[in-house]
Amino acid sequence: MVSKNEMITFLQSEFPKAQIVIEDFTDNSVVIRHQVRQEDLRPGGTVSGPTMMALADTALYIALLRQIGLVSLAVTTSLNFNFLRKPVADLDLLAECKLLKLGKSLAVGEVGICSEGHEVPVAHATGTYSIPPRH
Amino acid sequence: MVSKNEMITFLQSEFPKAQIVIEDFTDNSVVIRHQVRQEDLRPGGTVSGPTMMALADTALYIALLRQIGLVSLAVTTSLNFNFLRKPVADLDLLAECKLLKLGKSLAVGEVGICSEGHEVPVAHATGTYSIPPRH
Amino acid sequence: MVSKNEMITFLQSEFPKAQIVIEDFTDNSVVIRHQVRQEDLRPGGTVSGPTMMALADTALYIALLRQIGLVSLAVTTSLNFNFLRKPVADLDLLAECKLLKLGKSLAVGEVGICSEGHEVPVAHATGTYSIPPRH
Amino acid sequence: MVSKNEMITFLQSEFPKAQIVIEDFTDNSVVIRHQVRQEDLRPGGTVSGPTMMALADTALYIALLRQIGLVSLAVTTSLNFNFLRKPVADLDLLAECKLLKLGKSLAVGEVGICSEGHEVPVAHATGTYSIPPRH
Repeated sequence: MVSKNEMITFLQSEFPKAQIVIEDFTDNSVVIRHQVRQEDLRPGGTVSGPTMMALADTALYIALLRQIGLVSLAVTTSLNFNFLRKPVADLDLLAECKLLKLGKSLAVGEVGICSEGHEVPVAHATGTYSIPPRH
Repeated sequence: MVSKNEMITFLQSEFPKAQIVIEDFTDNSVVIRHQVRQEDLRPGGTVSGPTMMALADTALYIALLRQIGLVSLAVTTSLNFNFLRKPVADLDLLAECKLLKLGKSLAVGEVGICSEGHEVPVAHATGTYSIPPRH
Repeated sequence: MVSKNEMITFLQSEFPKAQIVIEDFTDNSVVIRHQVRQEDLRPGGTVSGPTMMALADTALYIALLRQIGLVSLAVTTSLNFNFLRKPVADLDLLAECKLLKLGKSLAVGEVGICSEGHEVPVAHATGTYSIPPRH
Repeated sequence: MVSKNEMITFLQSEFPKAQIVIEDFTDNSVVIRHQVRQEDLRPGGTVSGPTMMALADTALYIALLRQIGLVSLAVTTSLNFNFLRKPVADLDLLAECKLLKLGKSLAVGEVGICSEGHEVPVAHATGTYSIPPRH
């Protein structure tokens, strides 16, 4: 099991530009915060879809690597998104990932995304990662 | 809001062959039980994928009609399934649906399916229904 | 590569109740016909969603086994459906599957379903199969 | 129907930073090219998933607005992605969108993405847009 500090160091090294803060980091769920930037916004004062898609993918990746270790070459094989409501432009986004399955070669998880302080989700995703064989 | 008894009467009238029992019926979640029959089984002693897909669609439909009323002509527009583990052949399936969004023209929900008495899900689905305009 | 006759014999043996006829069976696409039965219909004179979901899954399965052989224990890991139009109740359904990827451990395909003689699709699906390691 | 020149002007005005070139623009399909930039790359010499997701969403959006007009406030409601192969890092990506359905309130399309000059797709997506009522 990867510790929270190990994960933070890994993310800073691998994705130095990502505006990600780990909020929760337990067996049951991983919650990450994305600090919304000007470049994430769309006309009309909302956060862009690709920003939320990248965030969901990152939440899945972190929840998975927490379990299988940081050296793995896990790759996304499928992602399904439902966009539910407009996110608020000037609030951070929180993404909570729960793993539904962690098999030997496939992992599946779901992600709910909310604007900070709001209970209703702005987006929901499910995704599958392929886990390469370990040597 | 449709009552549990109204829903049971509706299901018996519209889907007389469905082996569905409503277990929970609240604002937060609807749980239905499917009594697995011989015809639902696949070689190898497991429940067929289409049986689970039909169950997830039914759970979404019941959770939605509970909110919008039995007269509505809501139709499924998309369904996304992840098959996680083999269901146990001789146990009933329980499907729990939570609505993620109930808008004027679209509703989105997620469904987890378990073999009775087991906590880990055998399948997970998200689906979208189109709600026709009310007159 | 499995021949068309081998596949027909296999389907009759494994799925004796399925009303499936193989129409096309080439490298580029597999087309199967489903003879719509009374039990497939929904109130309002249309074919049920689960009938189309089962058909899409079967088309994917046949297209995949054609390539990897009939002994494989391939299992569906995810399916995504879009329901586009109401199928005509008294016409057969034709499902055409194209494999998008055939990897060592995962295969991905897409399926378009039409009512016979109609060009516009009534449903579209993409699906993923997990292929077990060969010994 | 929106002309190609009108669409180009619209994209330059609404998405000035997008590196999108329209290659094909017909009733049957819209093809757009994305010029891969340094910031789109992932360690290991491949294009990031979010870059491809954003590209698929854009291709759907352009194919839809072509039909319904540039003033529409169409919003993505769902997207489903399959990542099939690693894109080549130093080649442009081409995304081809075909609309599967254009209804009054919902549109559905599929998108195939290839590295330029390659025939096998690196990713495939299907997506749904909600079309607001016209006044």
